[in-house]
Parts: sequence; structure tokens; C-alpha cells
Amino acid sequence: MAEVSIDLNMVRVTNDAFVEKAEACAPKLLETVVRPVSIVDIAKTENVYPDVNKKDDIENLSSYHLAKGDKICLDFGDHQVGYVTMKLNSVGSPQDAPAFFRLKFAEIAKEITEDSKDYDGWISRGWIQEEFIHVDVLPAELKLPRRYAFRYMEIEAIDTSLKWQLVVEDVSCTSVSAVRIEDVEPVKSDDEMIRRLDRVSLRTLQNCMQSVFEDGPKRDRRLWLGDLRLQALANYETFHNMDLVKRCLYLFAAQTKDNGQVSACLFTEPKFIVDDTFLLDYSMFFGATLYDYYEASGDKKTLKDLSACAYRQMEIAEEWFDEKNLLKNGEGFWGFIDWTDGLNKQSAMQGVYIYCARKAQKIAEALGDTEKAAYFAKEAKEKTESARKYLLDPENGLFVSGEEKQLNYASQVWMILAGAVSAEEGAEILDKVIALNPEKGMVSPYMNHHFVEALLKCGKKEQAMDYMKYYWGGMLSHGADTFWELYNPENPAESPYGGSIVNSYCHAWSCTPTYLLRKYFI
Amino acid sequence: MAEVSIDLNMVRVTNDAFVEKAEACAPKLLETVVRPVSIVDIAKTENVYPDVNKKDDIENLSSYHLAKGDKICLDFGDHQVGYVTMKLNSVGSPQDAPAFFRLKFAEIAKEITEDSKDYDGWISRGWIQEEFIHVDVLPAELKLPRRYAFRYMEIEAIDTSLKWQLVVEDVSCTSVSAVRIEDVEPVKSDDEMIRRLDRVSLRTLQNCMQSVFEDGPKRDRRLWLGDLRLQALANYETFHNMDLVKRCLYLFAAQTKDNGQVSACLFTEPKFIVDDTFLLDYSMFFGATLYDYYEASGDKKTLKDLSACAYRQMEIAEEWFDEKNLLKNGEGFWGFIDWTDGLNKQSAMQGVYIYCARKAQKIAEALGDTEKAAYFAKEAKEKTESARKYLLDPENGLFVSGEEKQLNYASQVWMILAGAVSAEEGAEILDKVIALNPEKGMVSPYMNHHFVEALLKCGKKEQAMDYMKYYWGGMLSHGADTFWELYNPENPAESPYGGSIVNSYCHAWSCTPTYLLRKYFI
Repeated sequence: MAEVSIDLNMVRVTNDAFVEKAEACAPKLLETVVRPVSIVDIAKTENVYPDVNKKDDIENLSSYHLAKGDKICLDFGDHQVGYVTMKLNSVGSPQDAPAFFRLKFAEIAKEITEDSKDYDGWISRGWIQEEFIHVDVLPAELKLPRRYAFRYMEIEAIDTSLKWQLVVEDVSCTSVSAVRIEDVEPVKSDDEMIRRLDRVSLRTLQNCMQSVFEDGPKRDRRLWLGDLRLQALANYETFHNMDLVKRCLYLFAAQTKDNGQVSACLFTEPKFIVDDTFLLDYSMFFGATLYDYYEASGDKKTLKDLSACAYRQMEIAEEWFDEKNLLKNGEGFWGFIDWTDGLNKQSAMQGVYIYCARKAQKIAEALGDTEKAAYFAKEAKEKTESARKYLLDPENGLFVSGEEKQLNYASQVWMILAGAVSAEEGAEILDKVIALNPEKGMVSPYMNHHFVEALLKCGKKEQAMDYMKYYWGGMLSHGADTFWELYNPENPAESPYGGSIVNSYCHAWSCTPTYLLRKYFI
Repeated sequence: MAEVSIDLNMVRVTNDAFVEKAEACAPKLLETVVRPVSIVDIAKTENVYPDVNKKDDIENLSSYHLAKGDKICLDFGDHQVGYVTMKLNSVGSPQDAPAFFRLKFAEIAKEITEDSKDYDGWISRGWIQEEFIHVDVLPAELKLPRRYAFRYMEIEAIDTSLKWQLVVEDVSCTSVSAVRIEDVEPVKSDDEMIRRLDRVSLRTLQNCMQSVFEDGPKRDRRLWLGDLRLQALANYETFHNMDLVKRCLYLFAAQTKDNGQVSACLFTEPKFIVDDTFLLDYSMFFGATLYDYYEASGDKKTLKDLSACAYRQMEIAEEWFDEKNLLKNGEGFWGFIDWTDGLNKQSAMQGVYIYCARKAQKIAEALGDTEKAAYFAKEAKEKTESARKYLLDPENGLFVSGEEKQLNYASQVWMILAGAVSAEEGAEILDKVIALNPEKGMVSPYMNHHFVEALLKCGKKEQAMDYMKYYWGGMLSHGADTFWELYNPENPAESPYGGSIVNSYCHAWSCTPTYLLRKYFI
């Protein structure tokens, strides 16, 4: 199902002072020139994830003379985000026709085996990292103008001519990021899995840290509030880039709908503009993200500057409650929570409200605004009471959601994170929901992160570690160099978009193992 | 059948002084900015050539909001050779995905209706003027780096997203040529067909006159000797650009095979190099082209400089004769004459030898080299006598070719142009061959040109005019703005390449009506 919001009548209100403050924090991207490490064969197998086998040393690259239909696949050794330059030449008779070739850039090997022709999903096929290029005159140095996210790069000579062949003499990638992975001390552990979870999280986060915290450098390449919150948490434990978080917070506050609601995402090119997508949970997370930033940075000036915007999101959310203090269900793409198809989001959203009201209370406390603090404390209390009264099924002790009383993971997790139940109650709830294994499970690493945080909040530290190893470790077992936007261990080919070829395999909201490890385990 | 020559062991000998002289004559290309004149619909019909209908005024271009799969076709009003710039924008919500679109450039409307996927011929599909382009950030001004030859340009939005549409705000073409059509006085005639034959010839020639005389600005975009000879003749009657002919003659002489043979074609980018294709007729035409140039320019210095190269080609050709003074048949792609499939080229090639020997004789006479002049006179005489003795079929009075005594147009035409028969004999021969209509007819405008010249040489002026109107007029009736590389009135979809999508529709060797009209009719 297509999940998009369009509001062409949206009125945007801009705070120029905030825009200026955001721009003042824009990072200078660091560049690293990277070359492929080997020539590989990627063979489709019966498994979802293909085998990658080394075919030749990279030093032999220019010995490959590509005639019509020949292809070669380069392995850059790790996930890269950057700009590619190719040195091309011809061998044989003089080049009597344009060189015509296809480039495929793949974050994981599976994308090399997928055919863009087969994609028929609802998000743009423009995201498929594939180019068809003519070069009239060889030799040529080709500087590709677009940024790609990839580890593997396939070059296929669609046609040369009967008289000459294409030679790839050199390929390099100028990789870019706001931060350097070398500046972060790796997690020390005897357990290789733990070291890999940390390393791959760091690479994921690094490659999403560009001019803003992007959700994914392949797709959508822009700042989403829900992703930002988790990226910022991981960043505080690792890269410590406070300016980039500050920049993103100011950007969200700098342009809102005329009612003051912050957008779910925003663009910085060609110029700064917020999207006409509004997700209630994401808007509420503005305050949570702001408070996390204050806690990590001690930057009270920013906290003060942006507190009104944080409070405003809660006021807007408050309007969603009925007389029983229950958050009403929305229509269409009204909130995110998770990509789980058919998920009823009502109870989870009530949990998010309580969670964010407590964060807003802390903002008010930090700023010495006792009245506001008391207000949010009361809000959290009332909404918690209603949740326990109306949403907790007395028979099985689990939270249900919506008119159909849907049982799902998300409701339990968010009520636990909201503090609507005690650690002991939460532990029981989690045991039960895991045992029941409801149809409405968890799809995104984003939801899975919150599940692990719920386990940790309820003292289930060992189980949390096991789950991280099972879930993020599952991606590692499939060769992940960065963590993915989507991963369902039970259905590895899943995509909410109608085709996994547009999935993002380096995705911000998936980078949290490094945060969880550093915050709770070491 | 693939007609290519490859000689990777070819040794090239370069005359640097000649290269320098050629470079000194390089033209500065004139630029004209051209915009489309209307938005058109090109509909596939039962005919080979589709209908073109005006759909909208070009002023309404930016009112088209292209969603996934939408396309728009622009008509530039005449054939252009140049560099295209597009101004693109988005409408709707912010651009949340790359713009992904396809551009098709078409010299004639038919190319718009053809699908590149269907092409399976032997020359490179890289010649198909089609681009697949991603633009990450709109608005954008897109300066396409390649040169295109086209009248029609189709823009298809392969994908945008559900949230926004693509808008083409402006498109322009910086058309390039070494000459300006405005500098040539059109042929004056009450007959519109004659005026159009002249005009379309001029446009064809103009658009092929670039850094060298190209064969076709779509394909092959390079200098071929056979084409040059006819272009130069048309140029002397029209644009009078002597430097460009001089440049091309010096280029051919500047690099040869180690035995001194000039190549059939050459490249000037990335640096000057002659091809490893050798066609005996084309090599011989070097001298004919040189003498034509001298006649038109009076430039005796160049004639003297290049005469040795012209003589050398005839010496090389002389080696092809047997003891009966008959030129032996070659193997593979040994000579051109015409694209007619299965054509036996032996007798036509003997005709070309006699024709060129007479031109070489004239070069020698102009330079006062009586010995050489006598030699070539003797050569022409002996080869003519043998041709008449062995190749003229005593029964029907027509020339036959090869062991199979093939009857074809090319043998008659070249023996007439060679002066191997009198005008009266030639007239009879032409009447007979037309009446017999042999299976081996004429495919290329190049061959058809020589047929018309043969008619004119035999005093059949009215028939020559009728034939021009039938043959080149046939292309006009199908909407030609420039004359085509290939045209068979009886099989309009014919291509020697395995698919007409790679045919060139602005082709040098087809530009001769303006020459024939101006030389023989006005």
C-alpha cells in the first residue's frame, strides 16, 4: 500500500533566525578517496542473498576487454557513500561508435542480481542506482555527477562495436561524511559478534551523517525526525558531533505548518523546505530529541530557543484525545510506529504521547518552568491512567489497540517505554507477547530497537543482547556492512515498497546497536 | 551481414607537415540557438512513416506536468545538429525522489515510434540517440554533454513520485556547423519540388560540415573518403568552403598504411587517427577528390603537395589487375560501390579505376608532368579496352561482373562515368538496364547519385530530373528535412545494419541534388 501524504494547500511558516542558526552548524564534509579491492563474481543462488566470490585481483582490472554484453563487478570492500570517477579507454581498432554501458551500484550483493525492469512498486524507480551512459570519445575520465551508496559496482558494456572493446583502467570513489570512523574507539569485547555489531552500526551512522542526518544515503537521502532521534542517541555515544544534531533541530523548528506542527521530514536542496508529510509520533519526538540533545550537550541556549516548538507539538497532539483521554485513531498515513502492514497504531501512539510528555516535563524542569512541568506531569499521569483502564486487556494483561482490539508488539513496547507499567509488569507483558507471537509483529529495525529498549527497561539485559544478536546479527550473517532499513528474519525479501530493489541497506534507524551496547552493556 | 574491416597489425605512417596543414584549416564552428516550435503527437500508423500532428503551442510547454509514464514530444521545426540544454522543475509537493526520465532524439518521426529494445543489428546500439537520466535536485539546468542530430525530441518521465510531477520549462539547442545556410543563394525555380530538393540538400550538407565533412551527424560522425568526394562537389556549388576540403584532403594524406594506401575513413577525436578500413574505390577517389578541389579552387600548391599520394593510390590499385587487365575480385569488405546485398563489385571497380586514372592524368597535366600524364592515359585506355573486350556481354550489350557474370546497375553506371562507352552507347545501356530491372539494384543515395550522373553524361537530362524527383523527392514525400543515408523506394524500412533505428537520416552522400541542379540545370 502506498503510504504518502500530500497537502498542497499546506501553509509554511519560516523562522529565519532559526534557519540562520541551522546553516551556521552546517558541516564541512570530509573526503576520502577509496578504490575497489577486488573483482568479484556475484552469483544468484537459491538463497535470497547471493554468493560473492573473488574472481581476480584488482590490479588486473585493465586486462578485461569488455565487448558487447560483457560485465565486470568491482568490490570496494566496505559500504561507501560518494562520488565515482572512472578512467575508460578502448582497445582494438579506433573507437568507431559511442561506448554505451550500464553501471549498477549496490549496497548489498543482492541488488546486483536484481533487474530494475522487474520493479513495479509504489515508490519511485528513480531510486534504483543504475545509470545508462554513452561516451563518444575514449579515453575519457568520467566524473559521475551523482552521489551513490554502494559496496559493489557493476559495469556492463551494453555495446561497443565489432572493432573495439571497452577497458576500465581505474575507478575511484571520493567517499564523504561529516565524521571519521577512526575518531571513535571501538567497543572492546572478546565476543566477535559484539565487535561487529558495533563496527557495522558505526559505519551505518557515519555514512548517514552528511549535510544533515540522512535516513539513508541511497534512499530517501533526507532528514526524518524519527530517524534523527535514534541517530542522535547513537551519535552521543560515538561521534559526539553536537553541531549536526543542533543543526537538524533548528531546521525542523525553522519551518512548520501554520499551526506550528513540525514536519516528519525536510529537504535542504535546492533550498531548505519542509515536506508536507506529518506523522503524529514524529512531531511529538521533536521534544524528546531536543531533551536528549540537552542532556548530551548541556546546551541550555538551544533548549530554551526550541522549547516552545517542543511544547507546541504536545498541544497539537493533545487535540487528538477524546473525553476518555484516549488518543483517537487517525486515517491514512497519520503516524509511523512501524511498517507492519495493517498495524493499528492507536495504543502505541498513546504510549508515544506519554513518553514525550515526560520528556517535555523534563525540558520545563531544566528551564525552571514549574507550571509547564506540572502540566506535562499531569498529562502523562492522566493518559497513563486511561491507557491502563481502557487499553489493558484484563484477561491477558496485554495492551490492545483500536476498535478491533488488535494485539500487537508496538502497543506493549511503547507503553513500557512510556512508563505506563512497572518494570515487573513490563517484563511479564514482554514474556506474554513473545509467547503469543501476534500476527502484527515488527518489521523495521526502528521498531525492533524500541523492543530492545523495552527489554532493557524491564531488566531483561541478557534477552536484549540475545535479541540484538538474533536480529542485527541476522543482517551480519547475510553480509551486511551497514545495517538495513528493513529486515524481517522470517521473510528476508520483504519490502514495504513493492520490491526490495528500492530498499535502503544503510539506514539510520538501524544504527542503534552501538548505542545500546555502549549505554547498557559497557 | 556485418561489413567491417579489422587490421590490428596495420602500421600507420604519419606525415607531420600534412597534419599541421590540416589543423591550420580547422574551422571555427558557428553556433545558433534554436528552440522548439511546437508540441507534437507522433502516431504510429500502418504506413512506415508515422503521422506528425501538432498537439499544442510551444508556449504551453510548462503547463505539462509529467507524472510517471507521461511523455511529451517537441518539434524543432528543422533538422538540428547541436547541444541541448533543458530547464527542468517540479510541481506539487517537494521533490522526494530523483527525477528519472528518458530522452529520445529523432532525425525523422519514425525513430520516435521505434523501440531501442527491438534493435538487434550488427552495428552498435550505442548510436541510438536515447538517454536515461536521473536528476537529484530540481529545479535544474541540464546541459547535455553529447551532440545530437534531430528534429524531434521526446521527453518521457519514467518516474517522478506520487508527490510531484516533472515540468520542462525550456529546451534549447545550440546548433553547430562550419557554414551558414543563409550564405547560399537558393536555386530559383517555379517548381516547388526543385526548390525543396535544393533546400534539403543544402541543409544536409550544412549539418554534415563540422570539424571535418562528416558522413552523418547522427552516425558515423566521421570523415569517409567516398562521402567527402560528393560533399566537396556540392560544397563548390554552394558554401564554397575551400579550407574544409583542403583540411580533409591533407588529413587523408597525413596518415596512411605503410604501403601508402589512404584509409577509407578517419577520426579526429580524441586525436587524429586513420581507421584500419581500406576500400579500394575510396582509396582511388583520393586523386579524383584532389583534382576536383584543384579545379574549384585553383590551389596548385595543395595539388602538388598531395599528388604523390594520389598517384600512389593508383599504383596500389594497379596491383589488383590480372594479365587480361581485369581487376580481380576482392574478398570481404574490399570495396564499397553500394550497400546492395550480394553485389558483385568487380566491373564497377574497374570502372572506378578508369575514372580515377583519367583524374590522375589531369593532375599530372596540371603539374606539367607529361610522363605521368601519358602513363595514366595509357592505363585508362588499356583498362577500357579490356573492359569492353571481356566485360561487355555481346548479346545484350551490358556489362557483367564477376565469375557469375552478374548483371547489375553499378557496372553500367561506373563504366559510363569512366568514359568506357560513348554517350550514345551509354544511353542505350541505361535504357536496357532500366528495362531489365536487374535484381541487383541500387540502395544508397550514393549509388543513385552516380546513376543520375550517368544519365546526365549520356544526355538524358529530362530523365535525370525525373529520377531525382522520384528518388530524392520520395524522401521529401516522407517528410525529409535532410536527405537520408539509405532510401529504397520499394522497401522504405530497409537497413543494411539489421534495424533502421540506427540509420542516419542526414547523410552526406545524399546531398547531391543541389550539386546536380546547379551544375547541370541552372
